[in-house]
Amino acid sequence: MAAPAPLSPLAPRKYPTLPSIEGVRFATAAAGVRYAGRTDVMLALFEAPATVAGVFTRSKCPSAPVDWCRANLAQGHARALIVNSGNANAFTGGVGADAVAHVAQAASKATGAVAEQIFMASTGVIGEPLDAGKIAGVLDGLRASARPDGLMDAARAIMTTDTFPKVATARVKIGEAEIVINGVAKGAGMIAPDMATMLAFVFTDAAIAAPALQGLLAKSVERSFNCITVDSDTSTSDTLMIFATGAAARRGAPAISDRADPRLVAFRRALDKLLLDLAHQVVRDGEGARKFIEIKVEGAKSRKAAKRIAMAIANSPLVKTAAAGEDANWGRVVMAVGKAGEKAERDKLDIYFGRIRVAHEGLRDPAYDEAEASAYMKKPEIKITADLGIGRGRATVWTCDLTKEYVAINGDYRS
Amino acid sequence: MAAPAPLSPLAPRKYPTLPSIEGVRFATAAAGVRYAGRTDVMLALFEAPATVAGVFTRSKCPSAPVDWCRANLAQGHARALIVNSGNANAFTGGVGADAVAHVAQAASKATGAVAEQIFMASTGVIGEPLDAGKIAGVLDGLRASARPDGLMDAARAIMTTDTFPKVATARVKIGEAEIVINGVAKGAGMIAPDMATMLAFVFTDAAIAAPALQGLLAKSVERSFNCITVDSDTSTSDTLMIFATGAAARRGAPAISDRADPRLVAFRRALDKLLLDLAHQVVRDGEGARKFIEIKVEGAKSRKAAKRIAMAIANSPLVKTAAAGEDANWGRVVMAVGKAGEKAERDKLDIYFGRIRVAHEGLRDPAYDEAEASAYMKKPEIKITADLGIGRGRATVWTCDLTKEYVAINGDYRS
Repeated sequence: MAAPAPLSPLAPRKYPTLPSIEGVRFATAAAGVRYAGRTDVMLALFEAPATVAGVFTRSKCPSAPVDWCRANLAQGHARALIVNSGNANAFTGGVGADAVAHVAQAASKATGAVAEQIFMASTGVIGEPLDAGKIAGVLDGLRASARPDGLMDAARAIMTTDTFPKVATARVKIGEAEIVINGVAKGAGMIAPDMATMLAFVFTDAAIAAPALQGLLAKSVERSFNCITVDSDTSTSDTLMIFATGAAARRGAPAISDRADPRLVAFRRALDKLLLDLAHQVVRDGEGARKFIEIKVEGAKSRKAAKRIAMAIANSPLVKTAAAGEDANWGRVVMAVGKAGEKAERDKLDIYFGRIRVAHEGLRDPAYDEAEASAYMKKPEIKITADLGIGRGRATVWTCDLTKEYVAINGDYRS
Repeated sequence: MAAPAPLSPLAPRKYPTLPSIEGVRFATAAAGVRYAGRTDVMLALFEAPATVAGVFTRSKCPSAPVDWCRANLAQGHARALIVNSGNANAFTGGVGADAVAHVAQAASKATGAVAEQIFMASTGVIGEPLDAGKIAGVLDGLRASARPDGLMDAARAIMTTDTFPKVATARVKIGEAEIVINGVAKGAGMIAPDMATMLAFVFTDAAIAAPALQGLLAKSVERSFNCITVDSDTSTSDTLMIFATGAAARRGAPAISDRADPRLVAFRRALDKLLLDLAHQVVRDGEGARKFIEIKVEGAKSRKAAKRIAMAIANSPLVKTAAAGEDANWGRVVMAVGKAGEKAERDKLDIYFGRIRVAHEGLRDPAYDEAEASAYMKKPEIKITADLGIGRGRATVWTCDLTKEYVAINGDYRS
């Protein structure tokens, strides 16, 4: 999990500058959890309790910090977030729960917050006991060094096999007040639907009550993190949380308690866009990825059917290896449509690579030019569209190709 | 699909001699469907109508020959089976159906059988029109050259990316008469549950009515071909058929019409074993495979839950790349158990590699010796057991590792 890989060819050309958000400061430290010579712990420290919402892995074997966060989410407020890389504290049983409690107690002591308002996430190896003392040992230093502009460094501290830090930012108005939304994420492997993040954290100075925040997040994640897949594997640690400091209220932002409040329209749109941006960055940094692939299914019986078919295409090793080989292999797309188990009629199916229709109504398109399709497949970003022609359901998901580098990253690390 | 790959390291050391079966003869020809310099069509010719049963892909976009076989299975008898490699005649619409009808008519003319009793299967590229004339053109020669001992050659003619022919044989008594069962299969890629074959054909001289044969086959496939996966992808062409010539009746074998007939006990057991053998051979020849992996799930809530969890482990790219890397990475097994969506309790889960217990009740086993586990993982055949400790459901499935060669075979073939 630790060897530095070359920068993904799909990495963004430049990173946005993340403006400070009133009410929260960030710090990082090198606690030596597993890695040497790099930061591996981040702290987000809230001046006053921030409202908080979260969605987590659907794994039946979640990590200890996921259990902790779920249990403490109901009270709705956060004073601190502590995230470490290098060790996921997953499948560590009672010892893992003790480690979480240990860090929470230490953080409570260092910050004066109640333990229930300390949230945590861990990413890295599974099944190894987490040395809580290493994290507890850096908390005083983290508190002392926390700065409003420390989020970019925090994004780097939570990386594992990621080849670039994932950040996004937006400015939007609620009422007359301008508010800021910043987000960070890490991903790389074990990325699959139903919380495909590994970890993502969003911070805003908006004043939004926790239940409304939860509603916004749950809806937004459906069209972003739940629509990406790298390898169909689901982490035990997937965590997406949003924290709202409410500090914008001092500049006249209204306090919002209903997620359907019309004053949230711009915020909601910006949050959707920001989460989708972060989700795409996770795919762009998929282990070994060289192609960013958008898969659109149209004309299905329902949105649900469309999504299931799109995910069958996105998770098909044969589609993904064909993309790696720059082959417009629509036969494999048909295969994946067929295996999804949803209604499909061979004789109504159209398949496009980009704008090139390669199959039409159950046959290879007579007008299809293989040279044109081959040229298209050389691009780093590919769109595959399957139009089923039997209904109005549509869905879009994103994935990357399956390369020898993926196998090397996940199979060669010990040899 | 065509480049010859080096022999799988998991190939059998030697092939059994296939005894002749009364009432059926085999022939092969090089029709040039796609490949040059090799046979690519096989014919099985039945002296008198054989009873027939079959199970097929669950793909919603099945191939034209699958449609044909399904439609003609109800009348229960076969006079000929024609199989070609090189072109799957899948996603070829009306043209594909016409090609099947064309071959059936030509075979009917060549053999004197009615077209409905001609069964067909095709494997190879998808979406390319099949030149039925090429197959029709070799039928007279096939009929003329058909021999009782031609099945091994037939097994070679239906290979695509297979690196070895897959055959199995058994002798068993029904009543006082000894009968023979022979089987051939081809596989390699697009191998997944719910008919994981691509193609398999079984021949016997037993006298068993078609409905009973269908019942036997459907049951047997549940614990064999439906329990293997190479890459989670499901072909549009998966076909498994069994043909019973009934010729053993001349030697006193009873005619059986009920699949629960107690005289079938030995036959049923032999058929189960033979199908499992063929299914295992398909996995052993999985594209790029270097490890044959048995995955056993015990202590689940039900057999269905156990199978779903076993398949989640077997299809996990991270488990499969870890196996390729010879890493006893039980954390990834936990991950796969967790993502299966079935009930699991972290604190009751035990995981074994071979007989080495690596995780016990939610924690790394304190007695676990990494060196011993590493040595075990170097073997070509690996067993992974997950004991959930919450019920009595159990299931066993088989898969192979995910190697760079898999990616090369499926991604590099055009470059």
